[in-house]
Amino acid sequence: MSLVITSSLLSDLHCSQCGSVHDALIRQTLSNCCQAPLLCTYSLDRSVLQKADLVTRSKSLWRYEELLPVIQPENQISLGEGFTPLLTLNRLASNHGFKRLTLKDEGLNPTGSFKARGLCMAISKAKENGEVACIIPTAGNAGVAMAAYCARAGLDAVVVMPRHTPEAFKEECIGYGAQLILVDGLINDCAVKVQELMQQGSYFDVSTLKEPYRLEGKKTMGYEIAEQLDWQLPDVIMYPTGGGTGLIGIWKAFHEMKALGWLAQEQKLPRMVAVQAENCAPVVDTYLGKQTNSKQYIGKPTLANGLAVPRPIGEPLMLNVLRESGGTALAVSEDDMLEGVSELARYEGIFAAPEGGAIWAATKKLLHQGWLQPDEHVLLLNTGSGQKYLDNIKGKWYR
Amino acid sequence: MSLVITSSLLSDLHCSQCGSVHDALIRQTLSNCCQAPLLCTYSLDRSVLQKADLVTRSKSLWRYEELLPVIQPENQISLGEGFTPLLTLNRLASNHGFKRLTLKDEGLNPTGSFKARGLCMAISKAKENGEVACIIPTAGNAGVAMAAYCARAGLDAVVVMPRHTPEAFKEECIGYGAQLILVDGLINDCAVKVQELMQQGSYFDVSTLKEPYRLEGKKTMGYEIAEQLDWQLPDVIMYPTGGGTGLIGIWKAFHEMKALGWLAQEQKLPRMVAVQAENCAPVVDTYLGKQTNSKQYIGKPTLANGLAVPRPIGEPLMLNVLRESGGTALAVSEDDMLEGVSELARYEGIFAAPEGGAIWAATKKLLHQGWLQPDEHVLLLNTGSGQKYLDNIKGKWYR
Repeated sequence: MSLVITSSLLSDLHCSQCGSVHDALIRQTLSNCCQAPLLCTYSLDRSVLQKADLVTRSKSLWRYEELLPVIQPENQISLGEGFTPLLTLNRLASNHGFKRLTLKDEGLNPTGSFKARGLCMAISKAKENGEVACIIPTAGNAGVAMAAYCARAGLDAVVVMPRHTPEAFKEECIGYGAQLILVDGLINDCAVKVQELMQQGSYFDVSTLKEPYRLEGKKTMGYEIAEQLDWQLPDVIMYPTGGGTGLIGIWKAFHEMKALGWLAQEQKLPRMVAVQAENCAPVVDTYLGKQTNSKQYIGKPTLANGLAVPRPIGEPLMLNVLRESGGTALAVSEDDMLEGVSELARYEGIFAAPEGGAIWAATKKLLHQGWLQPDEHVLLLNTGSGQKYLDNIKGKWYR
Repeated sequence: MSLVITSSLLSDLHCSQCGSVHDALIRQTLSNCCQAPLLCTYSLDRSVLQKADLVTRSKSLWRYEELLPVIQPENQISLGEGFTPLLTLNRLASNHGFKRLTLKDEGLNPTGSFKARGLCMAISKAKENGEVACIIPTAGNAGVAMAAYCARAGLDAVVVMPRHTPEAFKEECIGYGAQLILVDGLINDCAVKVQELMQQGSYFDVSTLKEPYRLEGKKTMGYEIAEQLDWQLPDVIMYPTGGGTGLIGIWKAFHEMKALGWLAQEQKLPRMVAVQAENCAPVVDTYLGKQTNSKQYIGKPTLANGLAVPRPIGEPLMLNVLRESGGTALAVSEDDMLEGVSELARYEGIFAAPEGGAIWAATKKLLHQGWLQPDEHVLLLNTGSGQKYLDNIKGKWYR
């Protein structure tokens, strides 16, 4: 049997803390040197791949397959994820005095959120590595996405979710045939339960940044932002930050594109803004110096359940992105989120998740504070559809 | 002010019954000659547009803008609709002995269904024609889509929906700022209410086929199927049929592509299959000769609310498509739909609407009856996501 090999340029993995090199051809979790996230390294030879080569590619994140870690094409488990639309927000921009607002609508991904990007990559690689069952602690969307890709790949799935998560998230996991386990608490409590279950069965743990490949799926948002804006990046990216994989991934993509020569050397990179919920704002607190790190942070549930990540393992990487980019971090209230969701729906026809409502609320806040200038190009990353949150949103629309 | 004009090749409208020509530059509803649907005619000069020109176009239905009716680019009201993924169903195909099954997943459209295609076109043209308020009778998804596009276009929206429709459909309309009116009965009863409201206010009625442009949005599914399959059409298309605009539109697209020279002259067109619910199967009954037409048909509600259209105005056009294509029509039970939804989720990671479940159930049925051959390429058109139907699906998954 002859094997077709994709053109993946993956060369190896490196430890995000000490930089030491690790084998990309075997199952990997956290680095065995520092117990830190492992990052993928590619052979970014400018001659191999030109941005013009992309023009004829499929309208999905697999258009960047050289820059993704899957080796065998038959392991690309796809539901059509990625290459989501970039929409202009003309009505909100003119109402609020912005010159140029755009929104990347990740709600049009399979399973309704950006989590499809990371999980399609993690599950594709799990299949490629011969795993038969995957497990995940989740605030909601990641569990749904994992369950869907496992169903499509023919892998068993165990999803561990907070009990208070809206029913829609739970029911969809069950529909995909996943085993659903509910835990009192937040995602960090679910992670404890996952560790316990890992002692009892043979599962591969696809927790945020505990395997190297979800990040690679998420980074494609950065590639798409650049390509869809004809390689002219926005001034600012507003990102709703829970585990932070997307924030870290987009930044990684920008650096890879510089190395590939896809971005002009003089192209300024966007200021990256981490938006959190007042109910759970560990990264904001660390960024502002209120704590050394979030390892003991206590969070409360929020309407934006994707932001309810009290102790994100990627915090050091996120803080690097905020500082390197000259960005900032801020939190918004539950009411502000709802107002944000309402305005996106009422004026732009976009039914965003509360996470998306949060970034619009934060954008207005930063304009009022003068941190954003009206003539800057601000890009809002709406991470998902509001559909699964409807039970908690209904009757609360702002008018 | 200089006007930029799109390259729309729209020349005029013609009556679907008598063929007489009507002006495409003014507000049009049903033809004033026969009170029948009006269809768009284009100047399909082969030299103007080549299929190779599409390669660099946007990933949305606007890639076919020459073949769409909007004249001014600023009237293209878009939320990123169209160019939805075509997925292979390898696991279901191998479980059931099919050689090649594909599914076009319309659930990844804005507002979660194929209705986005038709309504983006109708609302874009309503804006172009200077309308300020639109009204629609709907089984659910069309109303949600109209509300979203009206919000984005800055038009007022009135949505008239059966009272028994799942809450998710209603709530999303409210979120987009539409006025929601509930009626006891099915979509035909909503249509009566719309006529009543039209006497009281100045609304533009965007009911199925009562204005010429929803069909033009829906036909893009046909263009995409051809382009995404590299201009080799499937043998059979399974289509869940309520109002039938998509069925008629896809067939129109195939004929336009023949005229454009985009399909080989020897390319056989697919057999088109109309799938309905046993609870409301007017087209099946007429197709099978159980009634002359569906003008007096009494339907019952079904889980697949998009199929609950007892007296579709487009019935004659649908029957033409079924006969011309050598297709057929069949109905499936509520239980079969649920089993279909469950299997698509469990084996392929696709959470389809009950309408999508119905076509998978019908596909299995036609294979068992020998109407479908195992080596035929069968394409399933899943018209929407199951998300908004969750209240009626939960706890009913087949195992």
